[in-house]
Amino acid sequence: MIAEIIAAGSEMLTPTRQDTNSLFLTSGLNDLGVQVAFKTIVGDNLAHLTSAARIAISRADIVLLTGGLGPTEDDLTREAVATALGVEIHRDPTLLTELYKRFAARRMTMPPNNAKQAEIVAGATILPNHNGSAPGQFIDTVVDNHRKIIILLPGPPKELKPLFTNQCVPLLAQSLPPRHLSRRLLRMALIPESQVDARTSPIYLQYPDVETTILSGTAEIQLHFVCAKPTQAEADQRIDELTTRIEAEMEDTLFSSHGESLEEVVLLNLGLRNLTLATAESCTGGLLAQRLTAIPGSSRYFLGGAVVYSDALKTTFAGVPEDLITTHGPVSAEVAHALAKGTLARTHASLAISITGIAGPGPGEPGPDANKPIGLVYIGLATPTNTHVTELNLTGDRDRIRWWASQHALDLIRRHIL
Amino acid sequence: MIAEIIAAGSEMLTPTRQDTNSLFLTSGLNDLGVQVAFKTIVGDNLAHLTSAARIAISRADIVLLTGGLGPTEDDLTREAVATALGVEIHRDPTLLTELYKRFAARRMTMPPNNAKQAEIVAGATILPNHNGSAPGQFIDTVVDNHRKIIILLPGPPKELKPLFTNQCVPLLAQSLPPRHLSRRLLRMALIPESQVDARTSPIYLQYPDVETTILSGTAEIQLHFVCAKPTQAEADQRIDELTTRIEAEMEDTLFSSHGESLEEVVLLNLGLRNLTLATAESCTGGLLAQRLTAIPGSSRYFLGGAVVYSDALKTTFAGVPEDLITTHGPVSAEVAHALAKGTLARTHASLAISITGIAGPGPGEPGPDANKPIGLVYIGLATPTNTHVTELNLTGDRDRIRWWASQHALDLIRRHIL
Repeated sequence: MIAEIIAAGSEMLTPTRQDTNSLFLTSGLNDLGVQVAFKTIVGDNLAHLTSAARIAISRADIVLLTGGLGPTEDDLTREAVATALGVEIHRDPTLLTELYKRFAARRMTMPPNNAKQAEIVAGATILPNHNGSAPGQFIDTVVDNHRKIIILLPGPPKELKPLFTNQCVPLLAQSLPPRHLSRRLLRMALIPESQVDARTSPIYLQYPDVETTILSGTAEIQLHFVCAKPTQAEADQRIDELTTRIEAEMEDTLFSSHGESLEEVVLLNLGLRNLTLATAESCTGGLLAQRLTAIPGSSRYFLGGAVVYSDALKTTFAGVPEDLITTHGPVSAEVAHALAKGTLARTHASLAISITGIAGPGPGEPGPDANKPIGLVYIGLATPTNTHVTELNLTGDRDRIRWWASQHALDLIRRHIL
Repeated sequence: MIAEIIAAGSEMLTPTRQDTNSLFLTSGLNDLGVQVAFKTIVGDNLAHLTSAARIAISRADIVLLTGGLGPTEDDLTREAVATALGVEIHRDPTLLTELYKRFAARRMTMPPNNAKQAEIVAGATILPNHNGSAPGQFIDTVVDNHRKIIILLPGPPKELKPLFTNQCVPLLAQSLPPRHLSRRLLRMALIPESQVDARTSPIYLQYPDVETTILSGTAEIQLHFVCAKPTQAEADQRIDELTTRIEAEMEDTLFSSHGESLEEVVLLNLGLRNLTLATAESCTGGLLAQRLTAIPGSSRYFLGGAVVYSDALKTTFAGVPEDLITTHGPVSAEVAHALAKGTLARTHASLAISITGIAGPGPGEPGPDANKPIGLVYIGLATPTNTHVTELNLTGDRDRIRWWASQHALDLIRRHIL
């Protein structure tokens, strides 16, 4: 069984908007064991949409059409599908009554064109839309001796998603063999995708029944695993077996076995040991603090910190001696050390982390930093008994250097706590 | 003239990856006056790809195919296009020699399957690829008495983009009437899209020759204008006329007339008046500082600040009296006032801004804040002569409240400076 998804809407043929519903629908179809073989994006043009529907019905077993179910002249999906199937459209009296009621409830008179939303392709099952006025339609028919399922869904994700999940999935599942899914997401920091693949592919290729996807983010790699089996226990067991082996192989760089973000893992581990954290950021300018505070509940373990962008504030907020900055430059191991230590002393946190570096695009400030390379970053980690500084040489543009620096800082905290 | 873009690659039929090249290509085609009427995404399957190519060639004047030009068995675009056109493929000896040289330069022996990248559809012009090994191909032909242009481009954006811009655009321009474009981007903060549209549509609808696109971001609306005319002066004049009227209408909320971000506008205005800025952030946790420091050169006008997430750090870093926090709660106009004033005093900035609020999802801390609503935010703005506090009642989730708070803070600074 293969599927095609048709997204109708001229706005998705512009440089600024994109069809995203198809990602959600693809995920749901894959869960049912159905692969998507084609996606078509077509404008609000009856001839184009009818031809696209006709082609899709001829080459796919399941055709999902999204959008074009509204009340305007541009909403042509119902008409296109009926023409492609060679069947009639009729107005459903119950739907029409509901539409009138909807407007009446808001004390408005329904504009006549809204009646269009009560039009049903002959033979379709109506899928009530609890989040909008246009219902979905589910057509289970035979074309040229082949069974075809054609589904019409409204375009707005808030309407489409519940409609698909709650009504289409159960209907589709009736026509497909039963399957149970198990999923797992492993996350690794500060390692290239190619290395992850080289180290894990000898393992995951032994599990052809598990679908493995490697996704690469900034300074992070995600390994997604999905396994479908006739029973849940079988699926879970396969996933457990495979991920236990992958975890052992990637132990040095794996920070999450169940999908948590690096920030969440750091905060979780601070919490487990009842530790508090403070930050002093120069080149990352608040990025590290912002990432930590984006997590709900972070205030229990993250006290806050200083954004010591200017040299003077390094002294004001963290007590870094002025002559240390003058002698070694703000981007130096010495200043990172003093920043972390000073922040620990001022904030009374259990752990303080400092970041100072040259994020570019310009070079370091005149003085001792003038000839230091873009991407040079020092991270200091202070505890009441010890302060350690790590030197990094990062590459890329300003955004990338700042993100990698914050990622390294989080990972240093994580490793320190463990 | 209408175009169709076919993206080839099974990974783009999964729930996690999407074709994005088509957005770039659509923009380039629109600039040439060509509308995209269809987009098709198809997997690495010869029958599917050939059928998609055949359909596209029949219904569009210009067909762009992206991806599937590599050396593996999955790379089938050349073969599919040749089959759809009913022509041969041949190996180009010059390309083959270049491929061998490429490998030799890296002291590697070329694997035999790489020779595939020297295969050319009969009649195609070779478009040299300076960023990869597979060249593009440009076919200008006649099918069923209609002129058809078929373009094959490599999938990686780093290869596709320069190839399209530098080689395809000039070739396509030769076949199309000359046109000159003028563009403008206006940006507005803290206003709903519906209001922008209601106020600006009576103006922009009078300019049907200017394409207007409204894009809605978080706490920001963008108005994009593009006008194409036979001469640059005509295009510029139309855009100037329209945008002058829109600027006058939206003056109260417009922060950028040429596309600059709100952070850039704030830093630019600080620079023009030689002012410096410092921040004290509670609920935004560094987000405001991070946004400012993401802009290169920000260190000249942004000194830094404090992330005063815990109550104690509000006292430590900004000298907020403890009893003020105990009496009024950390989320109060009084604390916002003291935070801004204290930060100004400590940092010696010309302007200090403070943010304290309840971002959720949990309620305020026990004590005076316990019954304050999620979304309540106070922003303090201090200068040596005056401190002013603004109260906001924001809605939405944690991310949205934090972003809107930082956006309000930036806009308050901008308005203060102006």
